Amino acid sequence: MSSFKDPNAFADPEDSKLVAEAKKVTSEPEEYTYTERDVILYNLGIGATEKELQWTYEGDDQFAVLPTFGVVPQFAASSGLPLDWLPNYNPAKLLHGEQYLSIKAPIPTSGELVNEARLLEVLDKGKAAAVTTIVETRDKHTGKVIFENQSTMFIRGAGGFGGKRSGNDRGAASAANAPPKRSPDAVVEEKTSPSQAALYRLSGDSNPLHILPEFAAIGGFDKPILHGLCFMGIAGKHVLKTFGPYKDIKVRFAGVVYPGETIVTEMWKEGSKVIFSAKVKERNATVLAAGAATLVDGAAKAKL
Amino acid sequence: MSSFKDPNAFADPEDSKLVAEAKKVTSEPEEYTYTERDVILYNLGIGATEKELQWTYEGDDQFAVLPTFGVVPQFAASSGLPLDWLPNYNPAKLLHGEQYLSIKAPIPTSGELVNEARLLEVLDKGKAAAVTTIVETRDKHTGKVIFENQSTMFIRGAGGFGGKRSGNDRGAASAANAPPKRSPDAVVEEKTSPSQAALYRLSGDSNPLHILPEFAAIGGFDKPILHGLCFMGIAGKHVLKTFGPYKDIKVRFAGVVYPGETIVTEMWKEGSKVIFSAKVKERNATVLAAGAATLVDGAAKAKL
Repeated sequence: MSSFKDPNAFADPEDSKLVAEAKKVTSEPEEYTYTERDVILYNLGIGATEKELQWTYEGDDQFAVLPTFGVVPQFAASSGLPLDWLPNYNPAKLLHGEQYLSIKAPIPTSGELVNEARLLEVLDKGKAAAVTTIVETRDKHTGKVIFENQSTMFIRGAGGFGGKRSGNDRGAASAANAPPKRSPDAVVEEKTSPSQAALYRLSGDSNPLHILPEFAAIGGFDKPILHGLCFMGIAGKHVLKTFGPYKDIKVRFAGVVYPGETIVTEMWKEGSKVIFSAKVKERNATVLAAGAATLVDGAAKAKL
Repeated sequence: MSSFKDPNAFADPEDSKLVAEAKKVTSEPEEYTYTERDVILYNLGIGATEKELQWTYEGDDQFAVLPTFGVVPQFAASSGLPLDWLPNYNPAKLLHGEQYLSIKAPIPTSGELVNEARLLEVLDKGKAAAVTTIVETRDKHTGKVIFENQSTMFIRGAGGFGGKRSGNDRGAASAANAPPKRSPDAVVEEKTSPSQAALYRLSGDSNPLHILPEFAAIGGFDKPILHGLCFMGIAGKHVLKTFGPYKDIKVRFAGVVYPGETIVTEMWKEGSKVIFSAKVKERNATVLAAGAATLVDGAAKAKL
């Protein structure tokens, strides 16, 4: 049985009573059903093209979903956990800080999945709270775990509740992933489309921040911004195309991308790990930092 | 009751026995269910942008599906009628010749529809057969007719069966729509995306002709071609943006468009009718001819 069912699965003796109680909450299992059409829609949403038939044509022998699709089925479950027990909680002050995705089994090109979400870690950063959720995504029929996601959110103004300040070592999910001093081993550039967010949002994150100018203005942005998980997917595609398949991927969101801008992904291969970061070419602004992907056995040898 | 149920609804004394029998076949009612997500996907597929929130954001007050969406729900029903009774029938020799769409009621932004298809007219052109199907699309719950479509297919090599040679007057569906001699009253230009067909095919026409180079080559094309109903939709959007809403639209397919090319729609307003044609800018090739749309009452006055 999964440790997910154990109310003390993620207990930490340093947690405050408030945090300890919140960690006992398990989400209702959230189902996610998808078809080959949803797969193509996701792939197009992160910039796969009509030339890349393995990602855009269901009849291709190699037809597959791009691995960062793993963040999609869990999205509703992860964002559904209650956070209103935090002091001064305001969802408008929430920022997506980090995302870690582990791919634990081959990804079906259609299927029925079940997601269970829990709080993994809650840190008191003084002015802000840093909340990390963990979601296990299983095949509904076999029970096999396909994905594990860890999502870290910063909630500005919600700190000062007496929780612990520093997190535990969560392995690849919390590694520092500092880029080596040398020039990148590979650089991939990709211009996004002005309609990229309008398309990507059909994969499940329909937050108006990504399409409605008035809403983006309230968030303090000049215009609607691209989904962080969309440009994580674009950078992840660059890693895949350059170095081959990986079994986990981690990013820290470091800046915004406006649809239409060009993503430049810089990559360094260190053994079986690819360290990467991404910037927007037009503004020379870093948008993904401390990125890393662990290549599947053999992939490391196959390329470069 | 609909004349659709009457086996002699489209009987014609000049029909051969073969044609008269084929006209008695009614398709099984074919259901089509769609959501706001499908509406946005269709609109993006015919080039609606993130700036046109009424077509790409479900939360917009004016959220609507572009009217040529009317060809989508009936697509499977229309292409499902048996044609193998034609002599030397070969589906690879089928060309989409003309499309007529009548919009009979406001289009819901999601719903459950039911389509019924019949053969309306079968002409013997000597070397080819010209087959026109008619499809009625109703709201499943109210029974109200939302769309009528007439689709004319040319099947090369399938003529010579002794059918009638010329069609009946089918009103707006078969009008000549010759453009006036003067310069167009309005011209709209739009560059398609190289991925346009890969995106449009998610709205229901997954023929590999539109994405698989090997398959396009068998059809005699240099590369995959854009769906005719996709660039009909693009031209229809130009009519809508220029002259306002219409209650029917008719086109003749006159050439191919490769995804990434620029569609130029030339329009002439003649009373409540907009005559239009479309060409590919890069090759100066006509791709839609004899186009016409009948403006809804009032729209004719509102613009130009």
